[in-house]
Amino acid sequence: MEKRDLLYDGTAKRIYTTDDEHVLLVSYKDIATDFFGLKMSTIPGKGAICNRVSNHLMTVLENAGIATHFLSESSETDCLVRRVKIIPLAVIVRNISAGAFAKRYGVEEGIVFDEPTIEFYLKNDMLGDPLINTYHAVALKIESRERIEEMKALAFRINEILKAYFQSVRIHLVDFRMEFGLTEDGTLVLADEISPDTCRLWDIDTHFRLDKDRFRLDMEQMDAGYHEILRRLLGNA
Amino acid sequence: MEKRDLLYDGTAKRIYTTDDEHVLLVSYKDIATDFFGLKMSTIPGKGAICNRVSNHLMTVLENAGIATHFLSESSETDCLVRRVKIIPLAVIVRNISAGAFAKRYGVEEGIVFDEPTIEFYLKNDMLGDPLINTYHAVALKIESRERIEEMKALAFRINEILKAYFQSVRIHLVDFRMEFGLTEDGTLVLADEISPDTCRLWDIDTHFRLDKDRFRLDMEQMDAGYHEILRRLLGNA
Repeated sequence: MEKRDLLYDGTAKRIYTTDDEHVLLVSYKDIATDFFGLKMSTIPGKGAICNRVSNHLMTVLENAGIATHFLSESSETDCLVRRVKIIPLAVIVRNISAGAFAKRYGVEEGIVFDEPTIEFYLKNDMLGDPLINTYHAVALKIESRERIEEMKALAFRINEILKAYFQSVRIHLVDFRMEFGLTEDGTLVLADEISPDTCRLWDIDTHFRLDKDRFRLDMEQMDAGYHEILRRLLGNA
Repeated sequence: MEKRDLLYDGTAKRIYTTDDEHVLLVSYKDIATDFFGLKMSTIPGKGAICNRVSNHLMTVLENAGIATHFLSESSETDCLVRRVKIIPLAVIVRNISAGAFAKRYGVEEGIVFDEPTIEFYLKNDMLGDPLINTYHAVALKIESRERIEEMKALAFRINEILKAYFQSVRIHLVDFRMEFGLTEDGTLVLADEISPDTCRLWDIDTHFRLDKDRFRLDMEQMDAGYHEILRRLLGNA
């Protein structure tokens, strides 16, 4: 598969077209930014870890019957994915209170919910990705009610699979962010990435934060969590 | 009914206990404030108009079979209401895009929705009344899923009744804010007020804004809308 034109240049990854019009190449970078892009730094090896962890988790999900955009790993930092039409609603599922959620509602971090929660954000940089609900997304004709219900059901299934999987390596899946896309025949698939950049992951035994919060919160051993996740999921390979 | 202790002193109204422990007295003020309480001014007669309009609309709703906290009008600016346990979720129903909604999602004002929308805000001054969804409210044990679904159904019924009623006097009910409470026996009732302070109301023929937006947006004839609403709903009485 040959790399062609740069389609998108984000802070954490670049996306290229390939010689197959149905296939894109995703290339992960070592750059980390905070919520608002105000803080930025390089974490050597982060790109490779996110690529390998995301590819691994997408494979775990595919094996459990979830359709994803993932095709194959093409190098340490790159992978090939199906070209899909991204739905402009980012989805966050939460199992435990943390981060912006805890701040927004004035509650402590670490409350374990009886049932997972879900919320949607309108993907729009100019508007700062505002929180949006099903009624609003339908009223503004961003998506149909049926499609949003399908996304909710799929997001909760993905959460159950990943939560159990992380549990098996003694990690709490606190919350995580997803994007979904539509294939040419209208099939809903998981897109974007599932990695320490997009998940909150806490060590079950030590409560050590293994995810991007170490960077966001200026904690020590910023990259320790990323390496530990890779080690637990993929061994020392 | 005798007025006793001041229970609550807000910008737009005061609430007092009475000699009946199940009854409160609401006294409307002429003060208007903007979203953040940064702008404040007196609109003479506003308190009386909000009181009379709200009492009238609560009566319209009661006649249509909706349970409310309203008992009786006790003076030009005051009314008696049932003492209920207020649910700390403010509810907004929208029929047409406007205000903060239009700004948040980067759309123009005046989009008529195919179906009304609903959203909840956690009533908490310290947190700035953040937007909250059903999953979050249930996870944080603010209310049960069943109660929230009951609130949604009731809010949409109230919207249908008020939309048709305003339509009959050539006014668009653009959006409005509600609060709900629980009586001692656990019955869900509409509480707070329904007035030009809590509704967006546009003249159907001239598109003249008849509500608090004239104040918020520094428009001319700030009190003209309030008087016009009173006139259309209650004649020149």
